[in-house]
Amino acid sequence: METELLTDYRFGLQQLTEIWGHACAIAVAKAFPLGSLGKRQPTVLVVCGPEQNGCVGLSCARYLRLFDYLPTVFYPKRSQQAVQQAFTVQCEKMDIPFLSYLPAEVQLINDAYKLVVDAVMGVQVELDSLGEPFTSILATLRNISTPIVSLDIPSGWQGCSSDTDRINPAVLISLMAPKTCSLSFQGTHFLAGRFLPYDLQKKYELCLPAFPGTDCIVQLLDAHT
Amino acid sequence: METELLTDYRFGLQQLTEIWGHACAIAVAKAFPLGSLGKRQPTVLVVCGPEQNGCVGLSCARYLRLFDYLPTVFYPKRSQQAVQQAFTVQCEKMDIPFLSYLPAEVQLINDAYKLVVDAVMGVQVELDSLGEPFTSILATLRNISTPIVSLDIPSGWQGCSSDTDRINPAVLISLMAPKTCSLSFQGTHFLAGRFLPYDLQKKYELCLPAFPGTDCIVQLLDAHT
Repeated sequence: METELLTDYRFGLQQLTEIWGHACAIAVAKAFPLGSLGKRQPTVLVVCGPEQNGCVGLSCARYLRLFDYLPTVFYPKRSQQAVQQAFTVQCEKMDIPFLSYLPAEVQLINDAYKLVVDAVMGVQVELDSLGEPFTSILATLRNISTPIVSLDIPSGWQGCSSDTDRINPAVLISLMAPKTCSLSFQGTHFLAGRFLPYDLQKKYELCLPAFPGTDCIVQLLDAHT
Repeated sequence: METELLTDYRFGLQQLTEIWGHACAIAVAKAFPLGSLGKRQPTVLVVCGPEQNGCVGLSCARYLRLFDYLPTVFYPKRSQQAVQQAFTVQCEKMDIPFLSYLPAEVQLINDAYKLVVDAVMGVQVELDSLGEPFTSILATLRNISTPIVSLDIPSGWQGCSSDTDRINPAVLISLMAPKTCSLSFQGTHFLAGRFLPYDLQKKYELCLPAFPGTDCIVQLLDAHT
């Protein structure tokens, strides 16, 4: 479907990344409003993978900064693609700090950040193909108590059968449409990015919920209720 | 400032057009909510010029369609630029109709459309350089009773000293920052597009109002009150 959007519908990767990153930041702000984060600073760690999901993370981080959160980006494998480089520069020019490594000490992350945004892996990426440092990063994220917001899919869930090996996000933000592996997700679930042409929704038989008013996100009802 | 955004900050034209078009559609929906347009269909005529302002109009039309308005586009001089062609295809693929000509009969426009979006000219374009059919289009728009929403500047206001020669929009949506010619505008005024890096705002001494919450538009107070 994404190929169709990019070719037949002439959407651009830059355009889609902007739409998704913006909507994800709105969903983060909806799930964790500034006022709910306590008196200390509203710090958010955004962990970005090397592919498109990571690029959406960069766009999300930029919007979080505009919404008065204090994002820090960890982006250990930088893509050489022009779109991803541009979104990186946009973050750097907004004075968003980039971490050079992720502390392995879980308590350090719990103390330093109110939220973690998981933009490590999208649906087309297999954990095995990513390798290090992402295997270690996910091992760390499994053990933190800071709430995690995952973009598109919880990283590593696809093709991962065992619950104990999984990260456990509090919030999932599905892009375009919920993916199969989100069926077993029981936390707060949003659909983000309002742009899909109606005939494409029909063609792929996506029964998407209606977005209220002019909102670009909609909360999905728990499939188990 | 736009050059700086595109080069130093690595924003893309596609990205900025998407941000602006989305924010403009939100402002239109704020000024004229669906429910306020009466029982007949919420038709909107979007008149697009050949330059960047017209491209923002195309993006705005697409979002208006997503928000359940019924936009029709009039885009008499199509740009050959890839970005503008892509935004045109996106509208066409959303089944948004394109007019082949604008009725000169004012009453026809008044009867057919609840709103007109003026995306004819941005701030860098002089009316004289545009020529026909835009001179005639603006002459028509001066006489319609359908409320006009202008994007960035009311088309033709720049360098136009006489009030009687001007179109008279009900709503103005300034992009990035209000332009000089908007000082004499007395209708409902929005600032749209929340993305400007703070240091660029500081460098150009833009005293922009704060956007509430996660909103991408903010209503500006009338300078005369």
